[in-house]
Amino acid sequence: MEASTHWNRSPGPAWPVSGQTRFVTLDEVVLESGTRISPARVAYETYGRPNAARDNAILVCHALTGSAHVARHGPQDPLEGWWEGMVGPGRALDTSRYFVICSNVLGGCYGTTGPSSPEPVSGRPYGMRFPAITIRDMVRAQRGLVGHLGVRRLLTVVGGSMGGMQALEWAIMYPEMVASIIPLSACGRLSAQGIAFNQVQRLAITQDPGWNQGDYYQKPGPVAGLALARMIGTITYKSDQCWNQRFGRKRGPGPGDQDCFEIENYLFHHGKKLVDRFDANTYLYLSRAMDLHDVGRGRGPYEEVVQSIRCPVLSVGITSDLLFPVYQQRELVQLLRRAGRRARYAEVESALGHDGFLVETGRLAPVLGGFLDELVSCEQPMAGGDA
Amino acid sequence: MEASTHWNRSPGPAWPVSGQTRFVTLDEVVLESGTRISPARVAYETYGRPNAARDNAILVCHALTGSAHVARHGPQDPLEGWWEGMVGPGRALDTSRYFVICSNVLGGCYGTTGPSSPEPVSGRPYGMRFPAITIRDMVRAQRGLVGHLGVRRLLTVVGGSMGGMQALEWAIMYPEMVASIIPLSACGRLSAQGIAFNQVQRLAITQDPGWNQGDYYQKPGPVAGLALARMIGTITYKSDQCWNQRFGRKRGPGPGDQDCFEIENYLFHHGKKLVDRFDANTYLYLSRAMDLHDVGRGRGPYEEVVQSIRCPVLSVGITSDLLFPVYQQRELVQLLRRAGRRARYAEVESALGHDGFLVETGRLAPVLGGFLDELVSCEQPMAGGDA
Repeated sequence: MEASTHWNRSPGPAWPVSGQTRFVTLDEVVLESGTRISPARVAYETYGRPNAARDNAILVCHALTGSAHVARHGPQDPLEGWWEGMVGPGRALDTSRYFVICSNVLGGCYGTTGPSSPEPVSGRPYGMRFPAITIRDMVRAQRGLVGHLGVRRLLTVVGGSMGGMQALEWAIMYPEMVASIIPLSACGRLSAQGIAFNQVQRLAITQDPGWNQGDYYQKPGPVAGLALARMIGTITYKSDQCWNQRFGRKRGPGPGDQDCFEIENYLFHHGKKLVDRFDANTYLYLSRAMDLHDVGRGRGPYEEVVQSIRCPVLSVGITSDLLFPVYQQRELVQLLRRAGRRARYAEVESALGHDGFLVETGRLAPVLGGFLDELVSCEQPMAGGDA
Repeated sequence: MEASTHWNRSPGPAWPVSGQTRFVTLDEVVLESGTRISPARVAYETYGRPNAARDNAILVCHALTGSAHVARHGPQDPLEGWWEGMVGPGRALDTSRYFVICSNVLGGCYGTTGPSSPEPVSGRPYGMRFPAITIRDMVRAQRGLVGHLGVRRLLTVVGGSMGGMQALEWAIMYPEMVASIIPLSACGRLSAQGIAFNQVQRLAITQDPGWNQGDYYQKPGPVAGLALARMIGTITYKSDQCWNQRFGRKRGPGPGDQDCFEIENYLFHHGKKLVDRFDANTYLYLSRAMDLHDVGRGRGPYEEVVQSIRCPVLSVGITSDLLFPVYQQRELVQLLRRAGRRARYAEVESALGHDGFLVETGRLAPVLGGFLDELVSCEQPMAGGDA
């Protein structure tokens, strides 16, 4: 274990890492490509306590721009987490019962080693010299953390979007270590459309002269490009129905007091907001890792690899998800059931699209809470729900 | 009337204007904003001949990157039109029966006055000094052309996407001049999501340093930015299902022999292709005109304005359209019928998304042809189809 300080973009504000973030330095993480990242630091937070049997641990995996700070550590914690409403005492991931672990992914910019971290010899940020990573590499780093925490078996691995990809890989890579997984708004392999939307977002960054081949850490960096990438992403995170309800054709003053559509101002706002809290190179690396996500890659036929998952699976979809449409979450359960596995599909009716997994905590909580209750009471939840 | 030569991007290839393109110079077009464009040249092509009664004229309106060249003028014509399969002898828009007119829109770059045209006094391209235009302004310019051609009444005004917006405006602005309209994959007002996708495409252009505030006509211009805009657009023009069927996760060599997903190569290809044939400033102006499209603007409640359309309307939707979802084409017909108007809705089952109106000519031809046949035989097509 190691104390704090990580290499932030400079000048400009530091990315907000919670005061509760802890760090473990792994000697190395051997990537799927064979490349080694050595040493590799993993930033993490924990909530609740391990029980005596050490069988109450839950690993929460974050999506593209998330961090280890999944929720506040009590009412005094000033920094809002990305899944407030799901994690805490009495919530679905009940920290009075479960030991909840959340870590920043490998390649991230919230304390875990990534492209903005210092390269060991030079001490300069890796930039594009950071090796390409995959979802499996993120899971390898998490495996190191879980071992460090003395946890041998996870009650569940849960996450949405890129977090759900990690949950699926956990069940395949370390089946002996996971009692169940809960992928939300996820898929077993990214669709062509998903790759396409990622590609244009990456181009928005790399075509910004401020990106400078990823070497911008002493400069403002690709501010406009990262904002544009986020704006494109944001469109795909909700739904046509949601935008109609929320903004329609309403107008208001935009940048420079120009008259704009409210939807434009909303996107501007969210673009700018991300620039202040996220590293453009990390965006590139994690986005590419999502493109590469395919549980079948190098293992065998896709269907068979999905069907090799032996633990109970709760797959959750949001009806209006444009980016990870519900057929993807259904398909996972259909494949698993066809192989006689214990899999449940739950669909949440919502106009909030892909963001639904983050925002619809009121509807998700009973679904996840119920699954966990069954899991704890009999360790064999039945395969309810229609897929 | 005036002969050829229009101001093209330089250096670089000229935008391909058909040898059959003719031009009319209008003394002025008074815009909705009150600004005058004077003179305003309109590039157009015609197919077939006016009949003695001069009641067989059809105006075809193009979408964002279209031109007056809707189809070949016979088998010798080297340049493919944007709606081949729909326009020609024996086709739905049967040039042995109908006098088909198609013009490049105001603000365009295929011969009609637009931001790349020379400003009258300086002779330099307008660039961003070109006034903001609306769909209604495009229709005003078309009205000038139609008058010049001695046509008093159009049998129909037909077009997809931005072309369908023009068709709707024709029926409202010049009701005495249109016997029917056929908007395809269109809407009465652009949705928030549509505005959002346009916004990020415009930003891709204007954030490219090569854009230079629109003053790039002696330089390469915003090559990367325009390509990126087109790539974003292209994703939205088809559908998740289409991309899955066509590309899935197939890989192949991309730029610089890098291993890419085929969907990425497809988008790169279409991005580059547009740069060679289209003006970035025109892209900005037409995209904004689409944002501003709302038949109710300045006229009254949206529903009432739609319901003021008195001619028969055939509204066509493509099931998988992401950008102009079918509820929009259905809504037009529902509103019209509620007011006792003659309106028909036709839905084409296709995975080709918004591009379906361009590509699914085999399925569209009988729908459009049948509507026109009824119109000619009784001038009162019945209101079939379910809306």
